[in-house]
Amino acid sequence: MSILVPDNTLITATVEEGRQLAMKMARLVVKATQPDAEVREQLRAVYAKDASLLIQISLVTATEFATIAAANNYWRGGPATAQD
Amino acid sequence: MSILVPDNTLITATVEEGRQLAMKMARLVVKATQPDAEVREQLRAVYAKDASLLIQISLVTATEFATIAAANNYWRGGPATAQD
Amino acid sequence: MSILVPDNTLITATVEEGRQLAMKMARLVVKATQPDAEVREQLRAVYAKDASLLIQISLVTATEFATIAAANNYWRGGPATAQD
Amino acid sequence: MSILVPDNTLITATVEEGRQLAMKMARLVVKATQPDAEVREQLRAVYAKDASLLIQISLVTATEFATIAAANNYWRGGPATAQD
Amino acid sequence: MSILVPDNTLITATVEEGRQLAMKMARLVVKATQPDAEVREQLRAVYAKDASLLIQISLVTATEFATIAAANNYWRGGPATAQD
Amino acid sequence: MSILVPDNTLITATVEEGRQLAMKMARLVVKATQPDAEVREQLRAVYAKDASLLIQISLVTATEFATIAAANNYWRGGPATAQD
Repeated sequence: MSILVPDNTLITATVEEGRQLAMKMARLVVKATQPDAEVREQLRAVYAKDASLLIQISLVTATEFATIAAANNYWRGGPATAQD
Repeated sequence: MSILVPDNTLITATVEEGRQLAMKMARLVVKATQPDAEVREQLRAVYAKDASLLIQISLVTATEFATIAAANNYWRGGPATAQD
Repeated sequence: MSILVPDNTLITATVEEGRQLAMKMARLVVKATQPDAEVREQLRAVYAKDASLLIQISLVTATEFATIAAANNYWRGGPATAQD
Repeated sequence: MSILVPDNTLITATVEEGRQLAMKMARLVVKATQPDAEVREQLRAVYAKDASLLIQISLVTATEFATIAAANNYWRGGPATAQD
Repeated sequence: MSILVPDNTLITATVEEGRQLAMKMARLVVKATQPDAEVREQLRAVYAKDASLLIQISLVTATEFATIAAANNYWRGGPATAQD
Repeated sequence: MSILVPDNTLITATVEEGRQLAMKMARLVVKATQPDAEVREQLRAVYAKDASLLIQISLVTATEFATIAAANNYWRGGPATAQD
């Protein structure tokens, strides 16, 4: 199975990086489920112009981000190190 | 990728600002997924008149807001500073 | 943007008020997304007779309420004051 | 608006009562959104025979129950009193 | 109303039992909503061959399981007794 | 019923393994609901080319992962042992 979590950690230096990780991790699930890059590119043309699918993508990002934010203690007081 | 988190923080002075941040962060995911402003404007005409899509948008906002509210300790007792 | 959080607080005196706030906050997201009251009234005629949309509305309310209930410490032992 | 939370509390003596409260609170949102009992009865005939709608109802119940279970400290060690 | 929570507890000896309880509790909501076993059997023939409905069922299970796992303190260090 | 939780634990050595467990546990719910491998293979051909279903799968994974991440204390400071 392709990699699901870049760098094998949920800890990021900033909120922005945490948000990017959330989007990346969601896409990596789709990649692991549909490994064919060509098919994924065809699907991109579908969801990028579909209001409902774009909203569903933002729901997945929000759900992933909730976990990443908790892992980083909401970036309150410097990045949560692995030993926090 | 376009910015996903304005000011790179989840901490806001008030609940209202936290709620606005939730809506903004959801929209920024759509913008990062569909960078073409014209396409997004066309989609706006679709979802702004569709009961199901408007309800889905409120579900995304509720999910984002849950994370932001936790980050701000529900604004109980003054804004949660980054050192909280 | 129209107001998203009445009185700018998640703290309510009772569970019932917290539940009403959850429904109100969900509606205010729709209002901020579709400011035209006439359009919203037309949409009301749609969702108020659609089982799926009514169920989706209850999912949004449940999600909003989870945050409000946590903010109020589940109203266990008197209302959680802002200093809790 | 009709009552949203029977007895204005999330605290129940047992898990079973907490589960029943979750279902009841979800239905009371639908009632507050569609006050006409006749319409709701017609909708019941629709969702009670629709696999997707029945599954969506169980998702709402699961989401409501998560909040009620947390409010009752998962009924671990006697009912969580309001002073817990 | 039919029973919603077998043995009236969320506490299970193992993760596997907790997972089975999550699936069981979701099904019991459907049973309470549609008491007719024949109708439920007809619906089973529908959802068991529908990718979207099977995915929705796994979403409900995931949501129920989150609550049961928290109730059991994620089965870290022996089963969480009711007095935990 | 077929096994729902490989090794009967939510504890994993790494984030990547936790993510894989989330995907596996979601699939095992589908397997328990539809035991026929041939039917599941036919469904795979459907969802692997459907943008909406792929997004729904990522939502289920995100929801499962939230529970597994909490169980592992977000892998902050070595794997959370069963006695944590």
